[in-house]
Amino acid sequence: MARFFVDEFPAEGTEYSLTGENADHARVLRLRPGEEVTLCDGKGTDCPCTVQPGGGLLAGAPVPCPAEPAVRVSVWIAFPKGDKAEHVIQKAVELGAAEIVLFPSRCCVSRPEGKALKNKLERWQKIARSAAEQSRRGIIPPVRAVESYAEALTQAAGAELPILFYENEEKLGLRELLPPGAAAAPKGVSLMTGPEGGFTEEEIARARAAGMRICTLGPRILRCETAPLAGLTAVMYALGEM
Amino acid sequence: MARFFVDEFPAEGTEYSLTGENADHARVLRLRPGEEVTLCDGKGTDCPCTVQPGGGLLAGAPVPCPAEPAVRVSVWIAFPKGDKAEHVIQKAVELGAAEIVLFPSRCCVSRPEGKALKNKLERWQKIARSAAEQSRRGIIPPVRAVESYAEALTQAAGAELPILFYENEEKLGLRELLPPGAAAAPKGVSLMTGPEGGFTEEEIARARAAGMRICTLGPRILRCETAPLAGLTAVMYALGEM
Repeated sequence: MARFFVDEFPAEGTEYSLTGENADHARVLRLRPGEEVTLCDGKGTDCPCTVQPGGGLLAGAPVPCPAEPAVRVSVWIAFPKGDKAEHVIQKAVELGAAEIVLFPSRCCVSRPEGKALKNKLERWQKIARSAAEQSRRGIIPPVRAVESYAEALTQAAGAELPILFYENEEKLGLRELLPPGAAAAPKGVSLMTGPEGGFTEEEIARARAAGMRICTLGPRILRCETAPLAGLTAVMYALGEM
Repeated sequence: MARFFVDEFPAEGTEYSLTGENADHARVLRLRPGEEVTLCDGKGTDCPCTVQPGGGLLAGAPVPCPAEPAVRVSVWIAFPKGDKAEHVIQKAVELGAAEIVLFPSRCCVSRPEGKALKNKLERWQKIARSAAEQSRRGIIPPVRAVESYAEALTQAAGAELPILFYENEEKLGLRELLPPGAAAAPKGVSLMTGPEGGFTEEEIARARAAGMRICTLGPRILRCETAPLAGLTAVMYALGEM
């Protein structure tokens, strides 16, 4: 079922016309009269609509979007090389991330700044929007960047359960942090992963001091674009969100 | 630590010279005397070695590869478009798949056959080998294809726990199939996912009749290249393999 993010819902029983990019998208989809589509306010509420003979959308009553997880997971990734960020952003949105934040770290080869970063963020946000529509999310997860590793640590460590995945950690696993049947599931989780070259030991020490839990993703070494998605999937599974 | 798959291990205490692609790879890595590398027999056993001043490898005693999961998960994917198969194969190997099998289904746009399929399988197997080295796997998961959906169902349904992920299934989830604290974890699991256009209802009925458990991956609709990796990650997490 096609899905469009809109600024404001039409009143129930009134007809609505898609505009801008949504209208372009609808033309590509060749919506037919009688077909059902969903408008979404991007705040977790859906409005089911029926396509009318003239092409307008007849609005039904708003309902909560069933695809939004109860847990808010922020995905923190060090700037990767090439177009890997696009890949991670698209998949993280599908898998239920609340936001994606990029940060520079010691071993980052790519460190976009200024105009280049602004352009990338615009492109990444479009990818997040499109992935949110396709996966039936109730929000468009924001994609943003912070200027330093220090700032990333400060913000990420503010989550109820702040996790940094490190390939040299051998003991602490996600299952220890998210035991099945725990009395209270965390409402906010941050997941931080490094660039191709990994984190330095000094960076890990700083993260630990900032309050991040240093955690393994198991004995198989995951690429920098695989680790955040595997971590996100495992957290969603552990918390009953898939 | 660099990792090389070899046909046979050198005897402990003897010196070994890498050959063929392994030798090429070693040159790229610029191994230095004293550095530790691992030979792997591709059957789950590792042989730790030390680089000698002349470039040879002094073999230590073989040990079981710590990265091999106890559960054998076969990943069954319908032929996807473009280069998505390469992506899924690389990530599935990182995440611990025992094998990757491609099959045709009703909505597949791509259906490689004959020479084209043979070339693709060769390329895919190289990707699997490289991913196995990089992620420190103890085996090189085979990549193969079957000729029909019927054959795929027959083989996949032979696993102890055969699962097909279907976006229109709303009730049965992985958590019901893999309850925490279950007395006996399954030793073999097959995970089957469809192409871009999904499975038809008739295909789902046939799968059910063949013994596949039809299962949801949650309320967010995952792309055809995301679903097998999310399913594999969740199974590995549920079974304590990450």
